Amino acid sequence: MNTALVILAAGKGTRMQSDLPKVLHEVAGAPLLVHAISSGETLEPEQIVIVTGHGGALVEKAAIAHTERAQTATQTEQLGTAHAVRAAEPALAEFQGDVFILYGDTPFITADTLSRMQAARAGGADVVVLGFEAADPGNYGRLIVENGALDRIVEAKEASPEELTVTLCNSGVMCADRETLFSLLAEVRNDNAKGEYYLTDIVEIARKRDLKAAAVACSEAETLGCDSRVDLATAEGIFQAKARREALENGVTMHAPETVYFSFDTHIGRDVVIEPNVVFGPGVTVETGARIRAFSHLEGCHVGEAAIVGPYARLRPGTELGGETKVGNFVEIKNATIDRGAKVNHLTYIGDAEIGEGANIGAGTITCNYDGVNKHKTIIGKDAFVGSNSSLVAPLEIAEGGYIASGSVITKSVGEGDLAIARVEQVNKEGLGARMVAKLRAAKAKKKDA
Amino acid sequence: MNTALVILAAGKGTRMQSDLPKVLHEVAGAPLLVHAISSGETLEPEQIVIVTGHGGALVEKAAIAHTERAQTATQTEQLGTAHAVRAAEPALAEFQGDVFILYGDTPFITADTLSRMQAARAGGADVVVLGFEAADPGNYGRLIVENGALDRIVEAKEASPEELTVTLCNSGVMCADRETLFSLLAEVRNDNAKGEYYLTDIVEIARKRDLKAAAVACSEAETLGCDSRVDLATAEGIFQAKARREALENGVTMHAPETVYFSFDTHIGRDVVIEPNVVFGPGVTVETGARIRAFSHLEGCHVGEAAIVGPYARLRPGTELGGETKVGNFVEIKNATIDRGAKVNHLTYIGDAEIGEGANIGAGTITCNYDGVNKHKTIIGKDAFVGSNSSLVAPLEIAEGGYIASGSVITKSVGEGDLAIARVEQVNKEGLGARMVAKLRAAKAKKKDA
Amino acid sequence: MNTALVILAAGKGTRMQSDLPKVLHEVAGAPLLVHAISSGETLEPEQIVIVTGHGGALVEKAAIAHTERAQTATQTEQLGTAHAVRAAEPALAEFQGDVFILYGDTPFITADTLSRMQAARAGGADVVVLGFEAADPGNYGRLIVENGALDRIVEAKEASPEELTVTLCNSGVMCADRETLFSLLAEVRNDNAKGEYYLTDIVEIARKRDLKAAAVACSEAETLGCDSRVDLATAEGIFQAKARREALENGVTMHAPETVYFSFDTHIGRDVVIEPNVVFGPGVTVETGARIRAFSHLEGCHVGEAAIVGPYARLRPGTELGGETKVGNFVEIKNATIDRGAKVNHLTYIGDAEIGEGANIGAGTITCNYDGVNKHKTIIGKDAFVGSNSSLVAPLEIAEGGYIASGSVITKSVGEGDLAIARVEQVNKEGLGARMVAKLRAAKAKKKDA
Repeated sequence: MNTALVILAAGKGTRMQSDLPKVLHEVAGAPLLVHAISSGETLEPEQIVIVTGHGGALVEKAAIAHTERAQTATQTEQLGTAHAVRAAEPALAEFQGDVFILYGDTPFITADTLSRMQAARAGGADVVVLGFEAADPGNYGRLIVENGALDRIVEAKEASPEELTVTLCNSGVMCADRETLFSLLAEVRNDNAKGEYYLTDIVEIARKRDLKAAAVACSEAETLGCDSRVDLATAEGIFQAKARREALENGVTMHAPETVYFSFDTHIGRDVVIEPNVVFGPGVTVETGARIRAFSHLEGCHVGEAAIVGPYARLRPGTELGGETKVGNFVEIKNATIDRGAKVNHLTYIGDAEIGEGANIGAGTITCNYDGVNKHKTIIGKDAFVGSNSSLVAPLEIAEGGYIASGSVITKSVGEGDLAIARVEQVNKEGLGARMVAKLRAAKAKKKDA
Repeated sequence: MNTALVILAAGKGTRMQSDLPKVLHEVAGAPLLVHAISSGETLEPEQIVIVTGHGGALVEKAAIAHTERAQTATQTEQLGTAHAVRAAEPALAEFQGDVFILYGDTPFITADTLSRMQAARAGGADVVVLGFEAADPGNYGRLIVENGALDRIVEAKEASPEELTVTLCNSGVMCADRETLFSLLAEVRNDNAKGEYYLTDIVEIARKRDLKAAAVACSEAETLGCDSRVDLATAEGIFQAKARREALENGVTMHAPETVYFSFDTHIGRDVVIEPNVVFGPGVTVETGARIRAFSHLEGCHVGEAAIVGPYARLRPGTELGGETKVGNFVEIKNATIDRGAKVNHLTYIGDAEIGEGANIGAGTITCNYDGVNKHKTIIGKDAFVGSNSSLVAPLEIAEGGYIASGSVITKSVGEGDLAIARVEQVNKEGLGARMVAKLRAAKAKKKDA
Repeated sequence: MNTALVILAAGKGTRMQSDLPKVLHEVAGAPLLVHAISSGETLEPEQIVIVTGHGGALVEKAAIAHTERAQTATQTEQLGTAHAVRAAEPALAEFQGDVFILYGDTPFITADTLSRMQAARAGGADVVVLGFEAADPGNYGRLIVENGALDRIVEAKEASPEELTVTLCNSGVMCADRETLFSLLAEVRNDNAKGEYYLTDIVEIARKRDLKAAAVACSEAETLGCDSRVDLATAEGIFQAKARREALENGVTMHAPETVYFSFDTHIGRDVVIEPNVVFGPGVTVETGARIRAFSHLEGCHVGEAAIVGPYARLRPGTELGGETKVGNFVEIKNATIDRGAKVNHLTYIGDAEIGEGANIGAGTITCNYDGVNKHKTIIGKDAFVGSNSSLVAPLEIAEGGYIASGSVITKSVGEGDLAIARVEQVNKEGLGARMVAKLRAAKAKKKDA
């Protein structure tokens, strides 16, 4: 069956206390909206329609950054969930098949859950509603299932004592055939306290038409919606706990997994060791046998097998570390390729560079890649040796086996096996250090006395 | 009603296993004593009397550092809480009004609780005792309330089975009119096992005189006293949990709030994002929309709106970052002003400096601010460009738009729009690098064979 | 009574998902095997026999690295625990006394527990089995104790309902006289589902011979075995919680103890303050009154009394900090002695060096200790001053009171009180900075337009 997604993302999220639209707040390095879309994409939908409202332009931008296939439909006034879904009707005018309604602030619905909803549709239900098993159902609407079918959704405040014992609660996630869906939506009324159109009402309308409804159940964590920063932190916690457990089970050693933070797309190989306090931003892959030492921060980079990173290494986007490379403490690498076995051990900035196999970059080396207007490239050959505290003024090429004397400022390219040096003769002035310090101290003492 | 504080701070705190007086151990960046004084200061007291004993000079110094209004009274021997309060009597000889007795090791009593104690006094109670609702009352003294009044305080070991079911326990915090208080204290006897004078006894003495007593209740966390380092860690945990929740509710994003540490006086604006593993020492304010990236450490500084700090940035006292500034990884800033839009991105030390709007400080730049005796200042103008790995030997001024060539050691001031360069001509020696390394390797191999 | 250890360490540990033998996975900076051996060593054994199988060579190497007294016995096929112990028989041929059977993946058995097992032997039991009190006994074998003696061990699936209520479960740890042990083992059969020889069976065989068995009980945490990375993380958590609590009780301040990671052999003195996010690798001792600031990482080093380390300090093996030294942010020290009162405050690499009392090493200083082949030493005298951003090209000696001008590359030794300078004259080119930037911008704009 063809599917389409309608993702509701128009809300302001007042409780976020934020100028940023609610669905753009992030969990695990990606906006809530992107989690919601990714979840829906497991259905391989033909169309993805995001219903936007508050901060619509920003929301659209984020959706398209994730997938160019995202379309948006604008809900100009926020008059309830049914009203929001109807905003997507024009965009789906030509679509034939099932529409899934998801929420931009609800990041964790699994592929398995959505495919069980599909199965329920295939089994004959006209409308399928996703319910979650609530530990404390409280004020949630209850899904009342009778003879295996969803009979109705009851708001907590209108529920009978018996209905209140039901723990399967309404998540708001639904699916139905497009035609059925919009036909049901056309009948939803706003004759309620808030004057809003509620999506929930389509179940009752469907039942009145003798259509069949079904409920599919999932865990409460899956349907967690994020309305506040406290919710966001809770969602992050759920994500991280799951990611850590999966990594451990896949053969990653983490002595203190509670201090390691993954992004939504982090890939870690087998027998990788991750020490305490490591943060993985988006776009990181680490190959087998690598070691990520304490206090490291990685984003948008690839770490080759058996490489050693950190402690205190910062790998920025565009960093490509070859196998058995070593990047040590207080080293920043950006947009650079470090080939097999090369070492960048201490207090160094490598930006916009290629470093050849087996090269050794000394402590305190700085690639001077920016002239105030443009960025330039540094190329360092195989087995080159860059002495400590050197400045490499790009654009620059140091050929294979080139050797840079420590403390040099290198502005011109260096040939294969050549030694480059750019430092001035040292002068020792006898006793001057002691005399100078004595003089400075005397002046200071005099000043104090004055 | 006028109020005065008596804060008991004479104890040694043997269980701390420390040479530091107990009340000077810190929670959230401030000594326990300062938390206790701050709590009492919400009453706007006329006098603040700290009763000191062990380490009295240090305790007095800390109290006065917090408020010059603090007075001290010395308790030469530690003969019990009643004895301690009596040590404050001379200091309060002229005072008319209510005396609140607080404890220097009890940091979290809230303004609300103290004002409810005031209200109880206003309602006619001669002595007001603060009780806490204990989850596990165990050996705590019980506050026995009858007909809405505090009838007596019973030690656990002398309590009847019925009295032991009471969960409102004695915190030791009390208030009474000065005259009443010291008149009651004069009758306290030390005919008990330890031969000490207990403040608790004044309730019984008051009741015998037909004075009225009242109990005010608060949570157990509020009255947590810190006797050991385990208690201190518990108190820190309570403080941090509260501070994190408040920040989230005020519109601060923290994906991993459990890894962010605040001080007692941290101020964070709306829509600020704080990444994992950030430590705020005392005296930090962060304005709206700033981002504090992972592994950053801030103390005594101000971060302007939309500034980006870190990862791995260390801002030391006296740092003032303007709006939209950027301080990147492995950068230390101390006693310096960085104006709007300026960037200090990598591996840099800026000390005792002023950096103008839009200036760019290259990677590896060091302000050489110390000559071994004195500290000197570096002033960098608007839109100046300091090339990477430069040394700026202070005192020094680089005027607006000044441009420093990478790797230069700058010792003289640079005029507006001038370019300054201080580096030596590079010499390339053909093949020397390869020959040298070969020679060194051969020598090493020979040595090994030998 | 003489004792010998047999430590079973032949298993592959399939659930670890690792190429590393199971017992070599680490907890608190030491392999599981080393924890197990150390535990057994509290018995002062005459012999230590490690039964190896998978990855035997690596396991042997690790055992011998810990103690040269370790012997290994190879179990070529893994046919059960009884079979494994029998592999140790030849190595113990001459031994007279008690054999303790421990497990290489079980790191936390205490000295107290082992000595209680010894006491049970001395009290007349021929075979002593260690049991743990399980919170949820589930499928564990039960130790059935009757009249104070161990009657039998019952597998959960063969246990009666009454036996299933027993919570004392079999840890597999046992001891018996060598002769008895191997005589019992000779009778163990493999007529079971898996066709393996189970050590457990010796209890039944002993009882049939009218020998006496006894059970000794310990906590479940003590007998935690590590079969997976999740188990390893759990074990690490148990270790750290205990180490943190002990440190607090011994007078160490940690405001956020949950963020401090100790190794198996960390020693921290009284009144040391450890700020949040500190990692101690193996081999660290910190003396009284020192302060280890946030985000520091220490391995194989000694920190003198009242020294201040960090934030963001990395002390590598061979670092010896004297009393009242100061090592600041983004500083790496390796194989170096820093004498009393010396300061290395910022962005510095000190490798293979000796730094004298009271010396001051400026920001951005780099010891250039590596020439591409060999490491060389830097010696800096008492009260020397090394100006910021200097490169010290080793081998090098700066004598007492030597003074290095900031930004110098020092290649020759400096005499007592001498000033050394190696920098080039600064040239200011009027207006060139502004003209150059304007030109670069114009070119860039043109390129964009093109």
